[in-house]
Amino acid sequence: MPSTLSALLQPRSVAIVGASDNIHKIGGRPIHYMQTMGYAGTIYPVNPQRDTLQGLRSYPSLDALPETPELAVIVVAGDAAVQAVADCARLGVGAAIVIASGFGEAGEAGKRQQDEMVRVARAGGLRIVGPNSQGLANFGNGAIASFSTMFIEIPPQDGPVAVVSQSGGTAALVYGLLRQQGIGVRHVHATGNQADVTVSELALAVAQDPDVRLLLLYLETLSDPQVLAEAAALARARGVPVVAVKSGRSQAGARAAASHTGAMANEDRAVDAFLARHGIWRVDDAHALARCAPLYLRGWQPAGRRLVVVSNSGASCVMATDTADTLGIGMAPLSTATQAALGERLPGFAATANPVDVTAALLTNSGLFGDVLPVVGADPAADLFLLDIPVAGMGYDVPRFARDAARFADEAGKPIAVAAWQDAVVSEFRAANVPTFLHAADALAAFHQFTAHGQLMRDVAADPAPPPIAAAPADAPTRTLSEAASLARLAEAGVPVVEHYLCQTADEAVAAWQRIGAPVAVKASSPAVPHKSEHGLVALNCNSREAVAEAFTRQTRTLAEMQAPVEGVLVARMTRGQRECMVGAHWDPVFGAVLLVGDGGKYVETVRDTAVLLALASPAAIERALRGLRMAPLLDGVRGEPPLDVAALVRVAARVGQLVHDARGAIRSVDLNPVMLGADGAVVVDGLMEVTSP
Amino acid sequence: MPSTLSALLQPRSVAIVGASDNIHKIGGRPIHYMQTMGYAGTIYPVNPQRDTLQGLRSYPSLDALPETPELAVIVVAGDAAVQAVADCARLGVGAAIVIASGFGEAGEAGKRQQDEMVRVARAGGLRIVGPNSQGLANFGNGAIASFSTMFIEIPPQDGPVAVVSQSGGTAALVYGLLRQQGIGVRHVHATGNQADVTVSELALAVAQDPDVRLLLLYLETLSDPQVLAEAAALARARGVPVVAVKSGRSQAGARAAASHTGAMANEDRAVDAFLARHGIWRVDDAHALARCAPLYLRGWQPAGRRLVVVSNSGASCVMATDTADTLGIGMAPLSTATQAALGERLPGFAATANPVDVTAALLTNSGLFGDVLPVVGADPAADLFLLDIPVAGMGYDVPRFARDAARFADEAGKPIAVAAWQDAVVSEFRAANVPTFLHAADALAAFHQFTAHGQLMRDVAADPAPPPIAAAPADAPTRTLSEAASLARLAEAGVPVVEHYLCQTADEAVAAWQRIGAPVAVKASSPAVPHKSEHGLVALNCNSREAVAEAFTRQTRTLAEMQAPVEGVLVARMTRGQRECMVGAHWDPVFGAVLLVGDGGKYVETVRDTAVLLALASPAAIERALRGLRMAPLLDGVRGEPPLDVAALVRVAARVGQLVHDARGAIRSVDLNPVMLGADGAVVVDGLMEVTSP
Repeated sequence: MPSTLSALLQPRSVAIVGASDNIHKIGGRPIHYMQTMGYAGTIYPVNPQRDTLQGLRSYPSLDALPETPELAVIVVAGDAAVQAVADCARLGVGAAIVIASGFGEAGEAGKRQQDEMVRVARAGGLRIVGPNSQGLANFGNGAIASFSTMFIEIPPQDGPVAVVSQSGGTAALVYGLLRQQGIGVRHVHATGNQADVTVSELALAVAQDPDVRLLLLYLETLSDPQVLAEAAALARARGVPVVAVKSGRSQAGARAAASHTGAMANEDRAVDAFLARHGIWRVDDAHALARCAPLYLRGWQPAGRRLVVVSNSGASCVMATDTADTLGIGMAPLSTATQAALGERLPGFAATANPVDVTAALLTNSGLFGDVLPVVGADPAADLFLLDIPVAGMGYDVPRFARDAARFADEAGKPIAVAAWQDAVVSEFRAANVPTFLHAADALAAFHQFTAHGQLMRDVAADPAPPPIAAAPADAPTRTLSEAASLARLAEAGVPVVEHYLCQTADEAVAAWQRIGAPVAVKASSPAVPHKSEHGLVALNCNSREAVAEAFTRQTRTLAEMQAPVEGVLVARMTRGQRECMVGAHWDPVFGAVLLVGDGGKYVETVRDTAVLLALASPAAIERALRGLRMAPLLDGVRGEPPLDVAALVRVAARVGQLVHDARGAIRSVDLNPVMLGADGAVVVDGLMEVTSP
Repeated sequence: MPSTLSALLQPRSVAIVGASDNIHKIGGRPIHYMQTMGYAGTIYPVNPQRDTLQGLRSYPSLDALPETPELAVIVVAGDAAVQAVADCARLGVGAAIVIASGFGEAGEAGKRQQDEMVRVARAGGLRIVGPNSQGLANFGNGAIASFSTMFIEIPPQDGPVAVVSQSGGTAALVYGLLRQQGIGVRHVHATGNQADVTVSELALAVAQDPDVRLLLLYLETLSDPQVLAEAAALARARGVPVVAVKSGRSQAGARAAASHTGAMANEDRAVDAFLARHGIWRVDDAHALARCAPLYLRGWQPAGRRLVVVSNSGASCVMATDTADTLGIGMAPLSTATQAALGERLPGFAATANPVDVTAALLTNSGLFGDVLPVVGADPAADLFLLDIPVAGMGYDVPRFARDAARFADEAGKPIAVAAWQDAVVSEFRAANVPTFLHAADALAAFHQFTAHGQLMRDVAADPAPPPIAAAPADAPTRTLSEAASLARLAEAGVPVVEHYLCQTADEAVAAWQRIGAPVAVKASSPAVPHKSEHGLVALNCNSREAVAEAFTRQTRTLAEMQAPVEGVLVARMTRGQRECMVGAHWDPVFGAVLLVGDGGKYVETVRDTAVLLALASPAAIERALRGLRMAPLLDGVRGEPPLDVAALVRVAARVGQLVHDARGAIRSVDLNPVMLGADGAVVVDGLMEVTSP
């Protein structure tokens, strides 16, 4: 871990600039936390008004301290904060956390002060967290440089989870939701305005903590994806799942984020692609961030995702089965032997197929769950187990249910989740360390995430490691290449394009048709007119000397009337294929080359059925993306058609991605539609490129 | 209310056959409940072993009672239960609830006993609830003929909600979830095996209770939709929302339902169509059933669904905005005046646009929510208000927040929901009667349901009242009409079909082509070969004497080789349109004629984009359904195309629906694809009908 980050997470000494004797004030609370939560280093309150506070000697200034502290927590505001940062830089303090707010988030003047703060820090080689940060908290060593009240609301317990968040409120919320479930939390860090140290950097630091087994992130902007990619790779190598919220998905949300922390908007589908490429599971909000934690932390490695539902309510069995179906989770087909064994253990009228309804007989036989679970658990067809208990309480031996479920969880090595909502029931199961959810829909959503994320991590591990992200701002002016020039560049890059000739005269056009020896499309080529068909500049299925010549003449006349430069007229073979697909790529200033593949044709923008990937995705990843689209069933051939040559489409996409990646921003976008896909090959019929102006 | 149902819900006297002195036994608990929960009628324990029990005189038999009871609750099992039902029928008891289990749900022998029970009841004019019912509970008058333990877990409080469920476990669960939120519940009824009285009948009964303001249903099967339709109409007329789970949506779920209560599977998309047609909102599970209750019960009538988010966390503002966007809920654009007024009330660095982040300044100014809410509430652009409080507790004046929110809820007349998860925070808001959810995603899902359901109820009210559902079993053998015969029937019904001629000779085919005077399709017509193109029996774009004659000859030869009966060869005008659509209808044994409309073409079954309606849907409803499809943007014309003639497609659908409805099962299905839709009209190009064999 770089020394800056160890100063933040494992400081041997901490100075609090703006320290308070009042433990309820922002300048007092970190001192109180560190003194009561086991911090073994030295605390230096800095407050010129006092000699002692909270039982510690207080110092008038950073300069007056007996040693240079490793970490400074700056609570004083405005110019005093900037001055404190300058002092830290001058004295060689390891790192500073600026808790004071009123900077970048508070308008122009604050933004200027923030810029000045960063300038003096950088000049002195000082890294800072914040400003407007709630602070960092490491419950592994008691270094609680945070003022969150949530640590009083729900007392901390060290544990395997790390939470790193731009937002202090969200860090506290996720901490609270985890602790409410009885889960221990090691790290709770908030970067606030993130003027210097980012969530990605702290994620990389905590991913190196060997006790961390789950990493939860809240991002409002992502400016350093390469650092986050490194954190994800490190975590993945250690088998640590990383789950992230990246908010501002919607346009309205992105505006709200910009107003919250001045977050720069990311292109949302590129964020999706980036996170997936690095095995990070994306969720939508803080509750979803915390929800799956109990499953992750048990360390289960399910072989598949075939579900068994066990409940004391038949109706709950039916509803859970429906919900599983919606999530694409199938019911495990229990073997005859399993069903026979269930038959011996269940009341005569109970169902022995899956779902397993133990019925209200549970009231008189509290051992039913304990009888049934090992039987279904031993069936090799069964991967996941939902114990749905909609009704319990008086008359039910809930402690026994919890013991039976806990024993299964420990012994079967297969994931089990309980759905229960009554406080007394939930608390029994949580105390027994059985993952417990308020209802089956939540439990099944968690099973879905847990298994799909596991698959994603395996897929990412099996893919070749991605090269570092190459990204650069894209602010140079651009121009659109003509279709002829676009096709030429593509062909050069090894992309199969339709047989075509650029013709300057009607005679040349007719000769081209003759060379092709089949019906042709005649299309005027002009860099000024990218959307030709809307101007009548495309003639399809021309298959006679007259038709070709007439089309040439008409189109050149139209271009002349439009006063558009004429590069020539393309004569191209009419291509048949089973499906019009599309491949696109563009240069993203943060993520570099981004690839788009999917269903094509005239209505591509209306009937959107496309997938986004980072451009250097592996062929396997591109194919997985295609097979996740609505059009996927067509790829295998339907209604007697042969299967489509998906590999050929994947090759086109991979080459286009490589082309845009290699151009390092000089190619701004490539838009190929249709790419005609048949049973034997894929060929680009129409293509346009936008490039940086020379 | 029919006297049977008043005997069930408002019995003046209740006999318990199989009464117990032990209040924890099934035969003891209803007596205990009625004695402690205000039942004013007479309770007659029937138990030959005892003279008194629970302080009441016990009788040896129903015959020994001093009067004929209005209601009998039968707890004894097996043959004794059948005998008790027979006794009730003989004595003229008003109605019976059979709580005993071990009947239809327990295999063949139980099913036979259940059938016998129903037979003796019917013979004596006795209506029964159950068997295998948890019983009925009316907290309005203390008639608690139910043994659910949930009424002990969470004590009852009379209120405006009615729960009617096939499943006793689900009835208890929904009751518990409502009471956990502090909501009062009047009716909690479970029909169990539903051998006689159905959920629909009880729904119709409770919909007549003037104090009921929300009706929640759990159905595993729906055999009497007409009764449920009446219940829904009655509820709608009183402004009472009806929300239903109909489980067994998935195939696996339907199998589970069949094994649970022997439920007959319904066609799920027809269930969707039926419920929507009658203004019933469908949800997926019991938790969703209870979730929206606090919004429904406030009686708000929002003008629209533009949202304002107010939070003390900027990140929560961003996440809630994203979630709202996913649900199609837009953010209200606050007026300049509103923003100026917010600016006066908020700290300088807080955002005055929507979402409104009051920031952590809430810690020092507890009045911020109270300051902000009336200002945004007065903005006419704002319809819905989410108060998202991810962090509160120590240092926060939560009681004041709750008072401020409650005042807004009472005075603004606009819906407000709070998102909070800390128990102490939730309980303050719930005590103040402010709808409170555990997180923003839940609150926003409830807002979505509340507003979309309100719109559905208004749409249904504006549509002409549907005729009674005509349904009948469809077990007669069927045959497929040839395309020529199908088109003839359709044309007769006023459906526009393509110009076509049925030809017996090549000369006739050529003459038909000449009459049409344009390119034609030549298609062999045989009732034995519905899928012609797969057998090479379709030739498109024939536009010469030779081509038409050749196609005729080849196709008749192919049919001869297939030894299929030849009805002739169709020569039909080639029709161009902008979009290939589809219209279908079929006869459902429960719901009668059911209509299917949507995107058509070759891949209709692969790229499913269709909507299901009851066949006699209004044109407005059909158009709404089309505009909810993925293809909807194409209907308005894209890329310079003119808008499609949606009204013409709607007319085709309406006529096809009427045709199948009028045939009362004699037409089993109609499948029209493509229906060619253009800017000016829709025409059926291909059509097949399946009819009952004569």
